[in-house]
Amino acid sequence: MIIVKIGGGKEINLEGIVKDLAELREKFLIVHGANAVRDEIAEKLGNPTKVVTSVSGYSSVLSDERAIDAIMMGYSGIQNKRLVELCQRHGINAVGLSGIDGQLVQGERNKGIRVRQGEKTILLRDYSGKPKGVNKELLELLMDHGYAPVICIPILDENRFAINTENDDIVTVLQQALHAEKIIQLIEAPGFLEDKDDEKTLIPRLSKDELQRREEQVHGRMKRKILALRKLLEDEKTIVMMSDGRSEHPIKDALAGKGTTIQ
Amino acid sequence: MIIVKIGGGKEINLEGIVKDLAELREKFLIVHGANAVRDEIAEKLGNPTKVVTSVSGYSSVLSDERAIDAIMMGYSGIQNKRLVELCQRHGINAVGLSGIDGQLVQGERNKGIRVRQGEKTILLRDYSGKPKGVNKELLELLMDHGYAPVICIPILDENRFAINTENDDIVTVLQQALHAEKIIQLIEAPGFLEDKDDEKTLIPRLSKDELQRREEQVHGRMKRKILALRKLLEDEKTIVMMSDGRSEHPIKDALAGKGTTIQ
Repeated sequence: MIIVKIGGGKEINLEGIVKDLAELREKFLIVHGANAVRDEIAEKLGNPTKVVTSVSGYSSVLSDERAIDAIMMGYSGIQNKRLVELCQRHGINAVGLSGIDGQLVQGERNKGIRVRQGEKTILLRDYSGKPKGVNKELLELLMDHGYAPVICIPILDENRFAINTENDDIVTVLQQALHAEKIIQLIEAPGFLEDKDDEKTLIPRLSKDELQRREEQVHGRMKRKILALRKLLEDEKTIVMMSDGRSEHPIKDALAGKGTTIQ
Repeated sequence: MIIVKIGGGKEINLEGIVKDLAELREKFLIVHGANAVRDEIAEKLGNPTKVVTSVSGYSSVLSDERAIDAIMMGYSGIQNKRLVELCQRHGINAVGLSGIDGQLVQGERNKGIRVRQGEKTILLRDYSGKPKGVNKELLELLMDHGYAPVICIPILDENRFAINTENDDIVTVLQQALHAEKIIQLIEAPGFLEDKDDEKTLIPRLSKDELQRREEQVHGRMKRKILALRKLLEDEKTIVMMSDGRSEHPIKDALAGKGTTIQ
């Protein structure tokens, strides 16, 4: 089977992706983003996405209750359902699910972010956390009966509240449960770039060792991204293809090795 | 099994409903509204819900593309996921689904509404229609494995586009497929009222004949509502309970016959 992760940027060619998937013979599931849509909704509703910086210097989105509302509207609402509709129009019997549906993605809420407020350091506890497991039975039940799961945030925390999390981490727990042979990550870039600001610096192939070496050289979000990639490669047979979601045939291009192949 | 239809008004006590359902021994599914939330979102996003009047005098919501977006945000997004979260917190393993997921509710798009525009009569074709069938296999697959489906609009039309429809009509096609013994309809009123503006005029019991008699006396939306009720009673064994969704124990009250019992 194939796990397809679709970025949430505005330039991603969703119709091209769905048309390609409709021709696939293998089973697949989709994990999609929607950050562009979410930010737009949150902004218009007067509750723009808030970013806070911790005392240790990390920036992260603050997921308060209204941010979870915006996730439910942007991710589980419009992006998930328009993608399911597109799948249905092209003959894919998609079922859209958030991580809270049927306890599909179970996580643990973060303890809080330490931030400076004037002279004091306070602990901001929001609705965000890390996925720890998936309801494999529900996914297999659907896939065995011909449905293609289309998955997005929020996920469920240990007290069964809806929380925000990173799609990279959702893909990791899905892979640990399902052991997909191929993982396709569609982004708004040609693949893994040597210089993130220069699309001509595509790295066509990356080994696990090479990833580890790079992980040691970078910081912050990029370090977390590479760590997530390395976790996916714990299955010896797995190939990760990071490829351009903006092209005419994003899936075909990825499978033809036009992006970065990591194994 | 029980079909629970929950109105989309602001005063409905969702937590009370979910707490009651958590104590039920019978299988159930939920069909919910979200008109209050949808209208609020559509208004704030600068695309307020439009009502048009046909040349024959009927008023209806015009479901253009942006109205379907608002439905996806308000119904499939925030209302569905907050309800699923509430279910999960009270031990119900809910799975939220719109009618387009897994082709759950299949319908036919309306031909259009004839409206007067200046001197001319034009045909406005929007994304609305009538449900004609349900994916019974998917519902049974989920319910047989311990999941409680939580269902809302949009549904799928014959060309697999997402369309708006009436929840009353969704309940009708669900009942035709599932033959529930009980149908509980939770509204913002004590039940079926003799005078809709006087809550003291609750009618505790209604027979099928009585419904038919009343259907002949009323017009418009009320006539359609009564017709929908009559269709539910085509199964001889079925009881419909129309009851107050605002009370502390909406489901217990309904089952205790505190609203209107129709059979």
